Amino acid sequence: MDYYSDSLSKLINELARLPGIGNKTAQRLAMHLLKVPKQESEALANAIIEAKNKIRYCTVCFNITDEDPCRICRDQKRDPKMICVVQEPKDIIAIERTRDYKGRYHVLQGAISPMDGIGPNDIRIKELILRLQKEDVQEVIIATNPTIEGEATAMYISKLIKPSGIKVTRIAHGIPVGGDLEYADEVTLAKSLEGRHEI
Amino acid sequence: MDYYSDSLSKLINELARLPGIGNKTAQRLAMHLLKVPKQESEALANAIIEAKNKIRYCTVCFNITDEDPCRICRDQKRDPKMICVVQEPKDIIAIERTRDYKGRYHVLQGAISPMDGIGPNDIRIKELILRLQKEDVQEVIIATNPTIEGEATAMYISKLIKPSGIKVTRIAHGIPVGGDLEYADEVTLAKSLEGRHEI
Repeated sequence: MDYYSDSLSKLINELARLPGIGNKTAQRLAMHLLKVPKQESEALANAIIEAKNKIRYCTVCFNITDEDPCRICRDQKRDPKMICVVQEPKDIIAIERTRDYKGRYHVLQGAISPMDGIGPNDIRIKELILRLQKEDVQEVIIATNPTIEGEATAMYISKLIKPSGIKVTRIAHGIPVGGDLEYADEVTLAKSLEGRHEI
Repeated sequence: MDYYSDSLSKLINELARLPGIGNKTAQRLAMHLLKVPKQESEALANAIIEAKNKIRYCTVCFNITDEDPCRICRDQKRDPKMICVVQEPKDIIAIERTRDYKGRYHVLQGAISPMDGIGPNDIRIKELILRLQKEDVQEVIIATNPTIEGEATAMYISKLIKPSGIKVTRIAHGIPVGGDLEYADEVTLAKSLEGRHEI
């Protein structure tokens, strides 16, 4: 790679660290960034810095947000009696896209995975239980991914909450098992919300 | 896309402007950038800004470079009597990778393409002719892409140079016709350099 000038090979290396971006693609992207007007490449650089500086986790639901609490937690039109538990912020986007769900969320920021050394204390389960004690919640919908880790997390949370008498439901397996919530289409996700069952 | 916080959707939009990066990929890259340590995301942002600020065109060969003249033009070990004419800086990388060529380069920064309104004056042909008048060059190897535009450019340049008595050669069609120089493998490219013929 010493055919490139220093600053170009630095840019290519940094781009190649992104997930799914190989060396060839990084080279193509770098060449593109060199060709576009300066304000366009700077807009990207600044967006990265700004997002990194501004974005924090909502102290209520642990979604990523610019303001704390996040938009959804501040929205008075959303039903506070319903909490949908998801693994990642991107899962909220997927569910919001169905326009079917009007409750609030709780982001676990992961799933229980003993293989990776992630136990119940490494994700935001404690914080969920605290919320249920403070807020008047009637139903917790567990929308973790239908993977081994997601299912294990769902079972664990369900067992923790059951004694309190709060209804705990699991989204239906309309989503292909082994799949990723993020890639489910709107209709499938809506169906799986509809067909949720108590666990 | 109004499910995202402002700074996140800004980042996603900027990433999605990159060639070959769709909305889904942009979202995944943005989430990745939010997850990595701050110095890693800042390294990428800074590499973009630095590359854009430092990189200019070599005033001799019009390759992209941090310093002017570029590394290859300054390299005393490279044969100044041979100039290889390419369309884009990335084509130099491809040829350098063969380790077969020891001459210099000239980057046209494009090819003649009447369909796109690109005429001979819109690319660096004038500058090539000036170089040939000032420098003692014995052979010009035309390594434009084997596309209609690349061939037309090769013919045009060849006709311009011929009267001066300088030898003009064209790389052999070892590269699949209609293909892109950038994606040729080293052996094929080396073969096409070897089998070059006068035009």
